[in-house]
Amino acid sequence: QGQEKPREIMEAAKDFAKERYGVSSMIQSQEKPDRVLVRIRDLTVQKADEVVWVRARVHTSRAKGKQCFLVLRQQQFNVQALVAVGDHASKQMVKFAANINKESIVDVEGIVRKVNQKIGSCTQQDVELHVQKIYVISLAEPRLPLQLDDAIRPEVEGEEEGRATVNQDTRLDNRVIDLRTSTSQAVFHLQSGICHLFRETLINKGFVEIQTPKIISAASEGGANVFTVSYFKNNAYLAQSPQLYKQMCICADFEKVFCIGPVFRAEDSNTHRHLTEFVGLDIEMAFNYHYHEVVEEIADTLVQIFKGLQERFQTEIQTVNKQFPCEPFKFLEPTLRLEYCEALAMLREAGIEMGDEEDLSTPNEKLLGRLVKEKYDTDFYILDKYPLAVRPFYTMPDPRNPKQSNSYDMFMRGEEILSGAQRVHDPQLLTERALHHGIDLEKIKAYIDSFRFGAPPHAGGGIGLERVTMLFLGLHNVRQTSMFPRDPKRLTP
Amino acid sequence: QGQEKPREIMEAAKDFAKERYGVSSMIQSQEKPDRVLVRIRDLTVQKADEVVWVRARVHTSRAKGKQCFLVLRQQQFNVQALVAVGDHASKQMVKFAANINKESIVDVEGIVRKVNQKIGSCTQQDVELHVQKIYVISLAEPRLPLQLDDAIRPEVEGEEEGRATVNQDTRLDNRVIDLRTSTSQAVFHLQSGICHLFRETLINKGFVEIQTPKIISAASEGGANVFTVSYFKNNAYLAQSPQLYKQMCICADFEKVFCIGPVFRAEDSNTHRHLTEFVGLDIEMAFNYHYHEVVEEIADTLVQIFKGLQERFQTEIQTVNKQFPCEPFKFLEPTLRLEYCEALAMLREAGIEMGDEEDLSTPNEKLLGRLVKEKYDTDFYILDKYPLAVRPFYTMPDPRNPKQSNSYDMFMRGEEILSGAQRVHDPQLLTERALHHGIDLEKIKAYIDSFRFGAPPHAGGGIGLERVTMLFLGLHNVRQTSMFPRDPKRLTP
Repeated sequence: QGQEKPREIMEAAKDFAKERYGVSSMIQSQEKPDRVLVRIRDLTVQKADEVVWVRARVHTSRAKGKQCFLVLRQQQFNVQALVAVGDHASKQMVKFAANINKESIVDVEGIVRKVNQKIGSCTQQDVELHVQKIYVISLAEPRLPLQLDDAIRPEVEGEEEGRATVNQDTRLDNRVIDLRTSTSQAVFHLQSGICHLFRETLINKGFVEIQTPKIISAASEGGANVFTVSYFKNNAYLAQSPQLYKQMCICADFEKVFCIGPVFRAEDSNTHRHLTEFVGLDIEMAFNYHYHEVVEEIADTLVQIFKGLQERFQTEIQTVNKQFPCEPFKFLEPTLRLEYCEALAMLREAGIEMGDEEDLSTPNEKLLGRLVKEKYDTDFYILDKYPLAVRPFYTMPDPRNPKQSNSYDMFMRGEEILSGAQRVHDPQLLTERALHHGIDLEKIKAYIDSFRFGAPPHAGGGIGLERVTMLFLGLHNVRQTSMFPRDPKRLTP
Repeated sequence: QGQEKPREIMEAAKDFAKERYGVSSMIQSQEKPDRVLVRIRDLTVQKADEVVWVRARVHTSRAKGKQCFLVLRQQQFNVQALVAVGDHASKQMVKFAANINKESIVDVEGIVRKVNQKIGSCTQQDVELHVQKIYVISLAEPRLPLQLDDAIRPEVEGEEEGRATVNQDTRLDNRVIDLRTSTSQAVFHLQSGICHLFRETLINKGFVEIQTPKIISAASEGGANVFTVSYFKNNAYLAQSPQLYKQMCICADFEKVFCIGPVFRAEDSNTHRHLTEFVGLDIEMAFNYHYHEVVEEIADTLVQIFKGLQERFQTEIQTVNKQFPCEPFKFLEPTLRLEYCEALAMLREAGIEMGDEEDLSTPNEKLLGRLVKEKYDTDFYILDKYPLAVRPFYTMPDPRNPKQSNSYDMFMRGEEILSGAQRVHDPQLLTERALHHGIDLEKIKAYIDSFRFGAPPHAGGGIGLERVTMLFLGLHNVRQTSMFPRDPKRLTP
C-alpha cells in the first residue's frame, strides 16, 4: 500500500522466519500498539540482555557470510546491530536485512548484548543489538545524492588522502540529507540553544518579547538594498531590520524589548558571511543616563549565551570539532570594551594606514581581531565610539567630540556580529541629522513623529544568529549555520 | 540643545527655586550620575518618608491654588505627586509643573508620604510623592492625537454616558500612544508570555527550535493568496506557512521541531480575525504509530500556556477585563476531543443542516463553540477527523474510512486557532493525492522529493498567536492583539 515491495523481498518471505521481517504497510495511524521504542543513546550495558524495540535509520549494512552487520542511527547516536542465521533469523532474513537501502527507517526488535571489544565506529561502544525482527517503516530510494560519511569527513583529510568530501552546493541542494549528519545535527541543536539562551537571559532581565511586521510601507533605511513586494494594488517592502518598530515600542513605554525574526537585505553580496535573509536577534532598551547601561546588558547577554553553550552543548561542540577543528571560544568578564581610537592605534602600530574617520574594512576587522586576541586573550570584544561619519543618521553624536558617536559594534573571532548605538530620541536633532545625510524628510516623517510625544533616551543593537553560530563554532561559511540559506544565487530548497 | 525652552519657562527661572525645576538638556550620555531611580510600583508605605528619584510620564496635571497635583505613570502603574508652594517649591515652580505637557517624561525628586485616604485613581493608593525637584527629560507636544483616558474607557460606558472613546483607526494610526495604555501594556506583556510559555513547554518536551526561510521560490500551497517579491532579476514569494520546511526538518531527523515567525497571506479578507501578516507558532513532530501522539502534545502545550497565563499574568488579565469584561477562560485536562461526526450531530440537533463532507462555516463554528461550552463547560477543544474533501492534498486519509482524514482543528471560544494533520509521508501516495487535487506535480517536485530517502510518519499544526491572545482575553478584534497590524487596507505604521 503506497510502497512497492521488490520481487526479491516477496520471494524471501517463503521461509520459517517470514513473519519476522518485511516492509510494513504505511503507518496511517491504523492502531496504537502498546510498544515502547527505546532511544539508541540509552542502549548501554545497563540494558544488557533485555529485548528492546528501536526505530532508526539504516546508516550502513554489510553482509558477511551468514551474518549481516547494520549500523542503526538516530540523530547523533548509532549502534551496531547483527542479523545472523540461527533461531531467530533465516538465510532469507539476513539477505533481506543486507539489501535494505541506506537511510531507510526500520523498526527492529533485538536483544542488547554486551560486547567484549569496544565498537569504535559507533557512539554506543559497549553493546550491540542481536536482531530478532526487522521491518522497513519507510524505504529510501537506492541511490543517495550524497553519502553521509563523506559529508562529515574533515576536508583536510579528504584532500590528503583523496577521499571524497561533499561540496557545498551538493549539500545545500540535498539539504534534507545533509542535515542528517552528526555535524549538522550538532550545529542546529546548538543554534536552537543560542535562541533559547538569548531569550532566557533577557526575560530574566525583565525584557518583553515583541513581534514586529516584516511588510512595511516605506523602505526603512534609505531605500537601497530593499526587496519590493506586490501588496494588492500597491508596492510594499520587506523590513531590513526591526529597528523602527523596536524604537516605537520604547516610545510606547515597553522599556526593554527584544525580538527574534527574519531580516531581509537585497544586497548582491556573494561572500562567506552575507545572506539575503537571516535571523536577527534584536534588542532595544530605554536607559537612565548613559548608553553604556545598554551596552553592558547586551554584552552580558552574549556572555550568558557563550557560557550556556559551553555548559549545555559540550557534546555538540565536540561533534562539530571532529569535522572542523577549532580553538575553544574565549571571552572575558566583564567584556573588553575598546574605543575606536584605541583600535586605530593598534592597527597603525601593525602598519595599517587609516584615517581617523575611516570605517574598518573586513580585512582590518580580522587583523584587529588577531591583535586583540594576542593582547587581551579574548575572542569577544566591544568596539565603542565609532566616527559619526560612518554611522546612520539616527546615531546619537558624542556631545564631547562632534566627530565621534555613541555607537558600537561587537566582534567574535574578528568578525562583526552586532551593530548598535544610542539613537537620537529628539525629533529636532533627528531632523537635523537626516537633512545632513540628505534624506528625504517626507519618507521618514512617521519615524520622526514617533518621538514627538515624549521619548526616553534609548539604545540597542541587532545580532546576526547565523554569524554567532558560525563564529562560536569556528566555522567558515554562514551557509553552514543557516538551515535553508538564501543568497543572490540560491532560493531553494 | 535640541529641545526648545518656551519663554514662559525661561522667565519662571527667576526665583529662589530656579535650580529645582526646568527642562534638562537632551540626554546624550554626557555623564553617569550615581543616582538610583525608583520604580513607581515600588512606592509603598514601606518607603514612607524616604527621598526618592523617579522617572515617569506626566499622565495628568491639575493646578489648584498654590498646589499642583500630577499623576506620574510608568507602564501599568501610577502615583499621585504634589508640588506645593513652600520650602521646596516657589509659585513659579508650581506653575511650571502645571504647564508640563501631558505624556512628557520627567525626573522627579520627592519625599514619599503616607496618605490618610486611599487614592482611588492610582495604582499606588497609600502614598503620594511630595515633589522637591522636577526636570523635563523629554517634552511632549501639547496636542495629543488621542487621550489615554479615553482609550481605556469601556465602550459600553462611553455609549451610555456619552463619554469619549477612541475608534480603532485613530488608535492604530497613533499606535505609539495607544500602546501606552494600561490595557495595551497588559495585552502585549501577556502576549510575550504566550511565546515564552510555548517555547518553555516545548523545550522541556525535547523539541528543537528551527528557523525557516520566508522568501521561497515557489508558492507553497497552490499559488493563491501569495505575495510576490522581486528577487534580483526574478520573482519569489513570501511563505504562507513554514510547513514544507518543518516537514523537511522531520525528514532530516530533528524529530520534534517548533518555530515562531511571520506568516503571510495575500487574502483580501477584511474581517475581525484576518491579517495579511501574522505570527505563527508552528509545531511538527515525528510519531511512532498514531498521530494522536502529536495531538496530545500540542493540546498539552496549549493547556500549559493557559495555566501559565492564569498563574503568572493575573494582573494583566484583570487590567484588560476592566476595559473588556469577559468570563475567565475555561479548559479541561485532558483536553476534550470530539470527532467531526459528533460535532455534526450536535449542530444538526440544534437545527443546522449540513452535509457529511461539508466544512464548518464561521457562524457554525461559533455555534458549535456555544454548544460545546454548554455541554462540556470548556472554552478549548479539539475537533478531530475532518472530511478528507475539505483538507489540503498532503493530509493523510483515514485508512478506516476513505471520506475521513487524520486531521484536526483546535478551537478557543468557538474560533479556530490551530489547523493540523498527519501528513502524507509516502511519495507515491502524496503524488496520487496531489493529482487528485489537480495540482501541477512539477511545482511541488521538491516537496515530494523530500520524502524519497526515508521519512518517518509525522503530524503537526500551526497556531495563530494573535488569535490565541485575542480569544484567551475575550477580545473581539485581532488588531487589538497585533502591535502593528497588517491588513489589505493597512500597512502603517
